Amino acid sequence: MILCADNLRITNKKIYNALLNMDPLPIVEMVRKCEKRGAHAIDINSGPLTKNPEKQMEFLVETVQSVTDLPIIIDTANPKAIKAGLLANKKKAIINGFSLEPHKIELILPLSNEFEVDIIGYLLNPNGHVPSNAQERFTIALELFEIINNFGIDNKRVIIDPVLAPLMWDNGSFQAKEVLHVINNLSELLDHEVKTVVGLSNLAAGYFDPLKKQQVEAVYLSMLYSVGIDMVLLNIFNSNVVKIAKTCELITSSKIFSWEEI
Amino acid sequence: MILCADNLRITNKKIYNALLNMDPLPIVEMVRKCEKRGAHAIDINSGPLTKNPEKQMEFLVETVQSVTDLPIIIDTANPKAIKAGLLANKKKAIINGFSLEPHKIELILPLSNEFEVDIIGYLLNPNGHVPSNAQERFTIALELFEIINNFGIDNKRVIIDPVLAPLMWDNGSFQAKEVLHVINNLSELLDHEVKTVVGLSNLAAGYFDPLKKQQVEAVYLSMLYSVGIDMVLLNIFNSNVVKIAKTCELITSSKIFSWEEI
Repeated sequence: MILCADNLRITNKKIYNALLNMDPLPIVEMVRKCEKRGAHAIDINSGPLTKNPEKQMEFLVETVQSVTDLPIIIDTANPKAIKAGLLANKKKAIINGFSLEPHKIELILPLSNEFEVDIIGYLLNPNGHVPSNAQERFTIALELFEIINNFGIDNKRVIIDPVLAPLMWDNGSFQAKEVLHVINNLSELLDHEVKTVVGLSNLAAGYFDPLKKQQVEAVYLSMLYSVGIDMVLLNIFNSNVVKIAKTCELITSSKIFSWEEI
Repeated sequence: MILCADNLRITNKKIYNALLNMDPLPIVEMVRKCEKRGAHAIDINSGPLTKNPEKQMEFLVETVQSVTDLPIIIDTANPKAIKAGLLANKKKAIINGFSLEPHKIELILPLSNEFEVDIIGYLLNPNGHVPSNAQERFTIALELFEIINNFGIDNKRVIIDPVLAPLMWDNGSFQAKEVLHVINNLSELLDHEVKTVVGLSNLAAGYFDPLKKQQVEAVYLSMLYSVGIDMVLLNIFNSNVVKIAKTCELITSSKIFSWEEI
């Protein structure tokens, strides 16, 4: 399971100010900390960058890559910012992401081919709404891969995010179950191997008791692992959840198990 | 997920002495505590009862059922003791269990039909050895259900235990992964719904650090839940693991989720 830190985000005031002032230091510190805590990739959640997308994304990518060789995930809905990020990128990058929303298919999806990078595909309705169950997600996935193939993009380039809903939603726990079902069955349904990713922080979004949040995230992470998730975006500073991720690997690896490593 | 307390076992010295002296009190106390802690069923792990199987199992079943209406699981390899337990049983009982071992097919399996009770079927080799991977387990499961059908026993009567190995074994973590794979795919492979059970305590058998044990059991329990386990035998006094089981249910239920219940 690839653990992507979702900590580098514009909603963090320090990061927001760093970007505003083009001050690399807070970003450098954040990235170093993420890597130290066990991140395998860094999500750059820049928000829309409406003012100066090219320059700001270039700054973010260059700053992150000045201190780490980890893959970056360019996480914005702004195609101009994504393109600037990909132009600035010197290492491994992933686009995050596209969906059936027409403007994303038109403007974001082709960048995957142009820059030969992987792209995250969200199982969202064309209007951007979250599907209500697994069946709708399967239907969307079929459409998504049809479009991908029409664009001449290799299936393997796409990492599917079935879109986890907050538990606080009326159907939140039902959705959590449906997402597991989708991850468990998508490859078989589509008859080719499908990589999957989930944004774990969505699950407890809007709730604040850190211990309960942690417990719920730890349990759901183990469940995701069990059905074959490939990648998780998460708060890498939550050491308990990171420990659980490592435990998942250890107790189902093909190496000789050692209690010392737990 | 049905949580079966595995606490009532002859290897517990208090229970051993209670049985020796036909003293119901320690057993009554144990069962009350198990039910209070959230058990949905009570496993009566009597050992072989070589001396006086009929009388001792009758005593155990009657004592347990004098204080609880929970289903009992008659857990012994001694067919005489099983039969005595089923004769004494006044409520719901499950036989635990049989496998491809010839004497168990001959002497234990028919009791399921005779008493119209469910039976646990272990995916063990005919010599009683644990299979080395998922594929061997699938082959054994096919044989097991063929035998069941030859005996005129309904598929639904059988609960499959794919046999979890201790992590301490050289291939322990590989086996843990294979067991998840078996649970995830058995129904599809056999083309009928198969109920499954796992003895969670096997995983950390032989290891003693309670915190690490707890962490490993909690993670694996979440994994089991995610692939559709129906029943788990576990130490019901381990409140952390029981809490995790409840969290599994809550975050994937079809009811409206409430953080209050976590």
